[in-house]
Amino acid sequence: MDNPVLVEVSRGTLVESRHRGAVAVVDADGAAVLTLGDVDRPVFPRSAVKALQALPMVEAGAPEQFGFADAELANASASHGGEPMHVAVVAGMLERIGLDCTALACGAHWPGNQGAAHALARAGLTPSALHNNCSGKHAGFLALAVTAGIDPGGYVEPHHPVQRDVRAALEALAGITAAACAIDGCSVPTWALPLTGVAHAFARFATGRGLGPARAAAAARIRAACAQRPELVAGSGRFCTQVMAALGTSVFIKGGAEGVMCAALPEQGLGIAIKCDDGAGRAAEVVAAAVITRLLPDAEAALAGFLRPLLRNWNGLTVGRIAPSAALSQPG
Amino acid sequence: MDNPVLVEVSRGTLVESRHRGAVAVVDADGAAVLTLGDVDRPVFPRSAVKALQALPMVEAGAPEQFGFADAELANASASHGGEPMHVAVVAGMLERIGLDCTALACGAHWPGNQGAAHALARAGLTPSALHNNCSGKHAGFLALAVTAGIDPGGYVEPHHPVQRDVRAALEALAGITAAACAIDGCSVPTWALPLTGVAHAFARFATGRGLGPARAAAAARIRAACAQRPELVAGSGRFCTQVMAALGTSVFIKGGAEGVMCAALPEQGLGIAIKCDDGAGRAAEVVAAAVITRLLPDAEAALAGFLRPLLRNWNGLTVGRIAPSAALSQPG
Repeated sequence: MDNPVLVEVSRGTLVESRHRGAVAVVDADGAAVLTLGDVDRPVFPRSAVKALQALPMVEAGAPEQFGFADAELANASASHGGEPMHVAVVAGMLERIGLDCTALACGAHWPGNQGAAHALARAGLTPSALHNNCSGKHAGFLALAVTAGIDPGGYVEPHHPVQRDVRAALEALAGITAAACAIDGCSVPTWALPLTGVAHAFARFATGRGLGPARAAAAARIRAACAQRPELVAGSGRFCTQVMAALGTSVFIKGGAEGVMCAALPEQGLGIAIKCDDGAGRAAEVVAAAVITRLLPDAEAALAGFLRPLLRNWNGLTVGRIAPSAALSQPG
Repeated sequence: MDNPVLVEVSRGTLVESRHRGAVAVVDADGAAVLTLGDVDRPVFPRSAVKALQALPMVEAGAPEQFGFADAELANASASHGGEPMHVAVVAGMLERIGLDCTALACGAHWPGNQGAAHALARAGLTPSALHNNCSGKHAGFLALAVTAGIDPGGYVEPHHPVQRDVRAALEALAGITAAACAIDGCSVPTWALPLTGVAHAFARFATGRGLGPARAAAAARIRAACAQRPELVAGSGRFCTQVMAALGTSVFIKGGAEGVMCAALPEQGLGIAIKCDDGAGRAAEVVAAAVITRLLPDAEAALAGFLRPLLRNWNGLTVGRIAPSAALSQPG
């Protein structure tokens, strides 16, 4: 099945580029509310499921043991820009766990936030694993191991108890066994699931429906933390941060590499999973803005700038725009 | 017409992302040797035609007037990484023209080369228009204006004599009138042409066939300059630089934004034009490597690393690969 064109990128009067993809919107009972394209093909949800990967850590009691509050739970669910606020929260998490940055197995990279990268260079420094966009998630994994009394060594391996717990939580929320496993950018396993399963997981994350009381409470706590500190989930000026800052507790949203975007709408009891065929993040953002606007008409004003973003060149001239295709815009 | 999937991105055992696109390979008489997908739809060739945009400047005698040699002609055809070598060549061009960096209308951006960007930040500096990847092309436009005795003011406007000359050269080489005009990232016009026309233009650029003697000589001179100084056409570690460094005068290749890639094979007398639907540069590189390998079997060893590039994560682990699809790999 060929997925439909969901997003068009125009320059002047012509469509210059086109992005195809698939979308699943599912309720907490697993019923599909809206689907576009092939929603049964397994996809790697990548970083879009970081909040779900944090569930076992919260359920195990790490927040109580280490005094993790909203900032720490938001950062454990983050793909952050390596800004000083992000690095400080992760360093604090490690200190409370009794570890340091050498325990992180995510690898180092320059901050995704350009200003933060240049500030680091200006100071004559190079990045550490703390600057890796996944460092908060990894600190969460370490916190789970220490809370559970497990040796954190090898915590990124698929058969380590930490990753077994994470996989079990994901599959339980999605209601389906993973079709395949691969290695993510930060070396942890990423488990392939159909978009319907990923969306179902986010509907359960949104509502707690069908989850035990500890897991439902953990989900609510992580959602509240991200709504309270959205700047820690992505970073300054970034899509997920801005959407959550604008819409508060009514939308949880998180992107992943290769064009994945997931969202939870607690008031509607819905989960959303999006995968762009070509891996384009710019397209996943427009698809998310379009789908959320359709399901949550009150969000329209807040999301207008993300629905049809203008393209400006190095001189600030408007040279084009990105916009939903007819297939995405038309009422389902 | 739906373009075929040309490139697949795998992670572990699954295809994670897919890139569609179209390819035209045309000879100097305009006969199509190989086509995949819709090659009649107009596309903006963007920076892939910078070497063609430099033709009027060379034909007008700017190299003789200002002492431009290989370095300057390669940089006039470049989307460079803003490395010190690139900035030095452009600054030298402007000095010889009797202008300075304030004459450049391309806008400023941080160097695309990460090391160069961090070095600039480390020195407490911010980028100027010299660091813009298009600064060499703009210096070439200014050189054309001054050589021709035309006021360079407004040289980026579609109706300025510089851009009229550039458009006329492009259309003459492509053998077709542009279907539309839009504004490029550096504020100059970009003219939409079908891929067959763009490929025809590069076949003429490769051979001089059907061009007047001055234009044919200018084309040969620019090709020779880029073969001699490929590091100035893109930059350290970059695809086009590495391909030309490996294959010498037998391949001229230049990428453009939004998944465009063009090449000229002088010995075969062929031009190649590639456009990936979604604008992905990583896909355009693999398509180019596959098409060149098919047309130039001797290039296979030199291009092997570009044909199926491995994906490594932040820890250097191999997590996947990018590879040509069956539609692209099978003999045409």
